[in-house]
Amino acid sequence: MRQSKLFTKTQKTVSAGETSKNAQLLTRGGFIYKNSAGIYTYLPLGWRVIEKLSNIIREEMNAIGSVEMFMPALVSKEYLQATDRWDKGVGFKVVSQTDLDKLQAPIRQLADKLQEEYVLGWTHEEVITVIASNYVNSYRDLPFFTYQIQTKFRNEKRPKSGLLRGREFMMKDLYSFHTDQKDLECFYEVVKFAYLRIFERCGLEALYTLAAGGDFTEDYTHEFQVLAEVGEDSILYCNKCKYAENKEVSKLKTGDKCKECNGKMQSANSIEVGNIFPLGTKYSKALNLKYKDEDGNEKQVVMGSYGIGLGRLMATIVEKYNDDKGIIWPSSVAPFGMHLLSLDKNKDADKIYQTLIEKGVQVLYDDRDVSVGEKFADADLIGISMRAVVSEKSLKKGGVEIKMRDSDKEEIIKIDDLSK
Amino acid sequence: MRQSKLFTKTQKTVSAGETSKNAQLLTRGGFIYKNSAGIYTYLPLGWRVIEKLSNIIREEMNAIGSVEMFMPALVSKEYLQATDRWDKGVGFKVVSQTDLDKLQAPIRQLADKLQEEYVLGWTHEEVITVIASNYVNSYRDLPFFTYQIQTKFRNEKRPKSGLLRGREFMMKDLYSFHTDQKDLECFYEVVKFAYLRIFERCGLEALYTLAAGGDFTEDYTHEFQVLAEVGEDSILYCNKCKYAENKEVSKLKTGDKCKECNGKMQSANSIEVGNIFPLGTKYSKALNLKYKDEDGNEKQVVMGSYGIGLGRLMATIVEKYNDDKGIIWPSSVAPFGMHLLSLDKNKDADKIYQTLIEKGVQVLYDDRDVSVGEKFADADLIGISMRAVVSEKSLKKGGVEIKMRDSDKEEIIKIDDLSK
Repeated sequence: MRQSKLFTKTQKTVSAGETSKNAQLLTRGGFIYKNSAGIYTYLPLGWRVIEKLSNIIREEMNAIGSVEMFMPALVSKEYLQATDRWDKGVGFKVVSQTDLDKLQAPIRQLADKLQEEYVLGWTHEEVITVIASNYVNSYRDLPFFTYQIQTKFRNEKRPKSGLLRGREFMMKDLYSFHTDQKDLECFYEVVKFAYLRIFERCGLEALYTLAAGGDFTEDYTHEFQVLAEVGEDSILYCNKCKYAENKEVSKLKTGDKCKECNGKMQSANSIEVGNIFPLGTKYSKALNLKYKDEDGNEKQVVMGSYGIGLGRLMATIVEKYNDDKGIIWPSSVAPFGMHLLSLDKNKDADKIYQTLIEKGVQVLYDDRDVSVGEKFADADLIGISMRAVVSEKSLKKGGVEIKMRDSDKEEIIKIDDLSK
Repeated sequence: MRQSKLFTKTQKTVSAGETSKNAQLLTRGGFIYKNSAGIYTYLPLGWRVIEKLSNIIREEMNAIGSVEMFMPALVSKEYLQATDRWDKGVGFKVVSQTDLDKLQAPIRQLADKLQEEYVLGWTHEEVITVIASNYVNSYRDLPFFTYQIQTKFRNEKRPKSGLLRGREFMMKDLYSFHTDQKDLECFYEVVKFAYLRIFERCGLEALYTLAAGGDFTEDYTHEFQVLAEVGEDSILYCNKCKYAENKEVSKLKTGDKCKECNGKMQSANSIEVGNIFPLGTKYSKALNLKYKDEDGNEKQVVMGSYGIGLGRLMATIVEKYNDDKGIIWPSSVAPFGMHLLSLDKNKDADKIYQTLIEKGVQVLYDDRDVSVGEKFADADLIGISMRAVVSEKSLKKGGVEIKMRDSDKEEIIKIDDLSK
């Protein structure tokens, strides 16, 4: 893509309210735009990163046999009332148009007109459970696993830290349905490893951390925590085997011996990039999701749910991979495979760009009529893993000058030797 | 994909409220699930069709030089107030949690607590205009074109006709930004042809129809109308050159001579599958989007917006392509390239399935332990273009029995000859 066609621009400053590294760098680089508190637009560069993350997640979700679907954001009152989550405080209520500003009549009218019909889904346990009850009859229909990648909403009183805690965010949520607890536990382990693969492919080391159930279950759950100063969570983890517990549930303290090995527990801030919940029968009971076992007896379906926030994942990567010049994307999630910079006005850069496109390389081509210094600074800020400079000097040597974003080494590589 | 792993099932009946063909067949086939009035889930089969439509739309949008992005659904009050669309009646208002049920104190408290902060975006002109004003300074920054594929919301009082008129729906919206009206008009023509290509690739003949501006503009606009009895629109169109006008704006009547040729105008119901709006400076004026021209004079940016509803597109295809047995998807948008049915219990079907997967064919493999009749009936209902039957008979002849959904002809084809 030609950078001149990208309507966004890098910027030197951001509003004083954006104190987190991820919000600052992603805003300055033209990845995101803040519309309101906790509400962001993914600009074209940011959307490409989200797509890279989605693809990694889809590949790993499909690999464990789950199928993609898409549930609505508007969730009717009766769904949430069935599980006593209608008034949990976390959801945005949606009303029909009330013409509030125009109301002159007694205020009572307002209450009559006010019909809170929906909540904006911040999770979809109720919805998927009701859907499942339409299709599940027998043990032969189980287990099954289904996921979606979709916008979620939370009525956060104090959204903060850029994409880490927002009011509207993109999430992958997976739900699993089983005949019994044992089958759930098996799949739970399968998801655990799929999640660890996802985070690893995104360049993150995530610690599998024992945690509390929150609104979702009365049982234990697990979180995937990435160590980071900006993180809102506090965990204790073993310096040796990485066994970890969220401080909310941990009885251990810094310096204690690890439960799993002879390592010592350390304390740190961390970001929760994913979580997995063994829901048990909480939702199947509330919403009457049953199956007939081999003997014809009716039983409750046993469920699990598993989430990854995509915007938060993107933010966490930026928090971990940056320097004073900008972002340093791991190549697996960079918006483009290569940033091609043309320094002198020559037609060769255009030709090289065309050649690379034909080879299937995803190239961001800085064809703008701006100074060399600005091009270099923007390339560092945007942070695409591989930078390729076309200049008279490089052309004399028969190629382009390649520099990786995380290295100072530059080398001339012949065009023909550049592949995907 | 193995059909046994698809958690949905076909069903013989649907609720009496679903009177439209698209809702009936898509529900019975397991493509969609109705959560509430006008609110549907895309089940795995339906989601695959949406992905096919998205890919066609993305290819055509990228081909005309527009870039993808993603804007939030929560749109703050001030955006819509600037263009006088906050109280237009079409939007769902979103409030913070009000704990309405718990209120015992004077009703006045309710009003104080009630803060309508957002509307759920039913379109994004305001949002994109504000974003653009952050990046546009000079004529050199124009033109540019950007689009998103995303969920939209409309507070429809009477949602009806399945996916044709819902409260929550998926839409592609494209916005264009220009220095002047002439440049907009040029691009408007470019989009017109891109849209006609999109509909053609989806198997639909869409008529480019003169229409009214609605809330969007005071100018003329154009709609893309597909003739269909169930459609809510009424148009007049030429039986010869297909020139068309929406009856809302047309001064012509049935039998009149066409404006463009010597054909005659006919009357018909139709479904609006897309629309394009020359917005002019309505939004750039209201939200102060300006640029400096070559002489340094400040001018308003000229805008256009262009929409396609993906769910509605899917519904329209079903309305046009069905028979008494079920859906007949055009192959370009079918959820799978092939429906493989194993009639006898033999291991060869499994092997053939594996071979096809390795060849890159998208196969739905009916490996279920159900009757032959049920498999054939489900295949007809689901409506994948190509059906391949593996039976002892077909294996004796060295292949699978191929039948296209829209034909009665069956023929044996060797496995090696089956390609994408």
